[in-house]
Amino acid sequence: MCKFEIVKKSKKSKARVGKLYTTHGVINTPVFMPVGTQGTVKTMSPRDLHEIGAEIILSNTYHLSLRPGQELIKEAGGLHKFMGWDKPILTDSGGFQVYSLAEKRKVTDEGVEFKSHIDGTKHFFTPQKVLEIQDAFGSDIMMPLDECVPYPCDKNQAAEAVRRTTRWAGESKQSVIRNAGCVKRDLFGIIQGSTYPDLRIKSAQEITSLNFAGYAIGGLSVGEPQEMMFEMLETLYPYLPEDKPHYLMGVGFASDILGAIERGMDMFDCVIPTRLARHGSFLTYEGKTSIRNARFEKDFSPIDPECDCYACKNFTKAYIRHLFWAREILAMQLLTIHNLRFFMRMMKKVREDILSE
Amino acid sequence: MCKFEIVKKSKKSKARVGKLYTTHGVINTPVFMPVGTQGTVKTMSPRDLHEIGAEIILSNTYHLSLRPGQELIKEAGGLHKFMGWDKPILTDSGGFQVYSLAEKRKVTDEGVEFKSHIDGTKHFFTPQKVLEIQDAFGSDIMMPLDECVPYPCDKNQAAEAVRRTTRWAGESKQSVIRNAGCVKRDLFGIIQGSTYPDLRIKSAQEITSLNFAGYAIGGLSVGEPQEMMFEMLETLYPYLPEDKPHYLMGVGFASDILGAIERGMDMFDCVIPTRLARHGSFLTYEGKTSIRNARFEKDFSPIDPECDCYACKNFTKAYIRHLFWAREILAMQLLTIHNLRFFMRMMKKVREDILSE
Repeated sequence: MCKFEIVKKSKKSKARVGKLYTTHGVINTPVFMPVGTQGTVKTMSPRDLHEIGAEIILSNTYHLSLRPGQELIKEAGGLHKFMGWDKPILTDSGGFQVYSLAEKRKVTDEGVEFKSHIDGTKHFFTPQKVLEIQDAFGSDIMMPLDECVPYPCDKNQAAEAVRRTTRWAGESKQSVIRNAGCVKRDLFGIIQGSTYPDLRIKSAQEITSLNFAGYAIGGLSVGEPQEMMFEMLETLYPYLPEDKPHYLMGVGFASDILGAIERGMDMFDCVIPTRLARHGSFLTYEGKTSIRNARFEKDFSPIDPECDCYACKNFTKAYIRHLFWAREILAMQLLTIHNLRFFMRMMKKVREDILSE
Repeated sequence: MCKFEIVKKSKKSKARVGKLYTTHGVINTPVFMPVGTQGTVKTMSPRDLHEIGAEIILSNTYHLSLRPGQELIKEAGGLHKFMGWDKPILTDSGGFQVYSLAEKRKVTDEGVEFKSHIDGTKHFFTPQKVLEIQDAFGSDIMMPLDECVPYPCDKNQAAEAVRRTTRWAGESKQSVIRNAGCVKRDLFGIIQGSTYPDLRIKSAQEITSLNFAGYAIGGLSVGEPQEMMFEMLETLYPYLPEDKPHYLMGVGFASDILGAIERGMDMFDCVIPTRLARHGSFLTYEGKTSIRNARFEKDFSPIDPECDCYACKNFTKAYIRHLFWAREILAMQLLTIHNLRFFMRMMKKVREDILSE
């Protein structure tokens, strides 16, 4: 079971620096988790991940259960061994992907029936099933099945999703208690409630009463304005146990993350740095910039002279721009390394700033 | 100027182990040169290339002169600096690509006019022009413009190509003598002649009389049977100065290379290991095998247990197969690392076998 230790609380905000101890190593929080949807962080080898300073990655239950499947990963000795990554792995429940990717989904109190986006085969996710899959993967941190709603969402639908999410959270908790194997792993609870403060509070109260190893906030950064997301975090804060890690799921841009840290959030994951890289954009504190830009044609300086990543230490913008226009894969690799390292350095700076207050 | 030293000659064949000293380092021959067409060996970073043991790479004048252009590379400080590769680079003349990729080419004794395959713009390559480009790149070994013919090719056309190749070789030699900058670089001669022994001999006599730093054999492995290629090498051997490196251009599969080494060849380049990797095939002494094969679904052994590459040391066939089916770029990277390392290990073994005879 993981242990969460608060090293220091900021005097200026609700931010805190912590350490999350797991079977596969210690995670310094606030932490950004690179997303390895299909058992690989796109374009990155495990040694690239070590080099940029990743302490934990996220992988997707939905994708991996469809391909290559839980049996194969179990036979391989678990996801860590299968993908050659020896540090912690958090797996999501697949709940979000079922809503965003799968076809013809049907939600009942028992679970979600859906068709695979890969081959159209029919699948049924229950709270028990998704934990069984994550157990087969050997995830360090498992997430329970939840019901996600789009934004905007009418209040009745949001309330129904909260009710079901709580029901499934209880079943998940029971399922873990029954399954001896799962005690090596940690289960977080997920709070839903769309952008309705009263629903968010209700969800937080119900979920925290079940006593999970950590608490995740789902269903934010799905299209609502940033201030609304921050407002929800402020509403929720008093209801989140202080001694447990707080995980804001699927967020986000640098400014989202920095604002969320000040509002007490500890863990983040997002495809933004990796996806933007593959589309040719690099990240700095000024935001995103396309390497394709004509002004970089003869720019023989690195992406960011302050950055210590392999891409910035060895290559110029002119070269990476050339690679991108020439459709060379190395362009995506170098931009991914830089963007992830940028997020890692940003998180490190946040921790150092709090520690030196 | 490079210096070629023969370390040992085989007692069993015409094979020899040598050292080619260049401004950017020593190359142990027989050597395989990974192909970095657009200023990058596809999917590989320079550190990956160092790790697999590459001592020299080849890059393409045709591609780089069209994009990003010689001026930009010159401003960047040359190709080595532009692409972050500090070991030797051999650049071809673009002759072969003009014939295989460009559109609407028109060959005269002055040079080749063609339209870019990228944007249809018109270009004119002369013997002087392609050396000027390679000089701007800062290539360690430059190749002169030659005329390539397809296979099969009628004798008149082949003879005409030999005549023009010799004419251009002479102009290239003069051009290098006039250009002081070029004296830091080395120029090889290229022998043509299709599959006609008398034309091959004529070409070899004419080209070697011009005294180049090394001799390349072009226009083989273009569709003719392997035994015909070997026959040409045997025909040519007596006409190749023993104290100069012999480079068989664009070859090939493992068996082609091994047979050519026995026939006195020292240098090779080919897109086979990298291209096959991107298409999902790995190389062993048994030939090529597709990682997509169903029998690898639950094969938790490495591609080659004997191989010391990063892919074989850390990942299973089942994992790489999963990556390939999931269209993950890491599959191409790992297979490229393995295939190039396989070629490097094969060349190392050839050298060791000769040395221990």
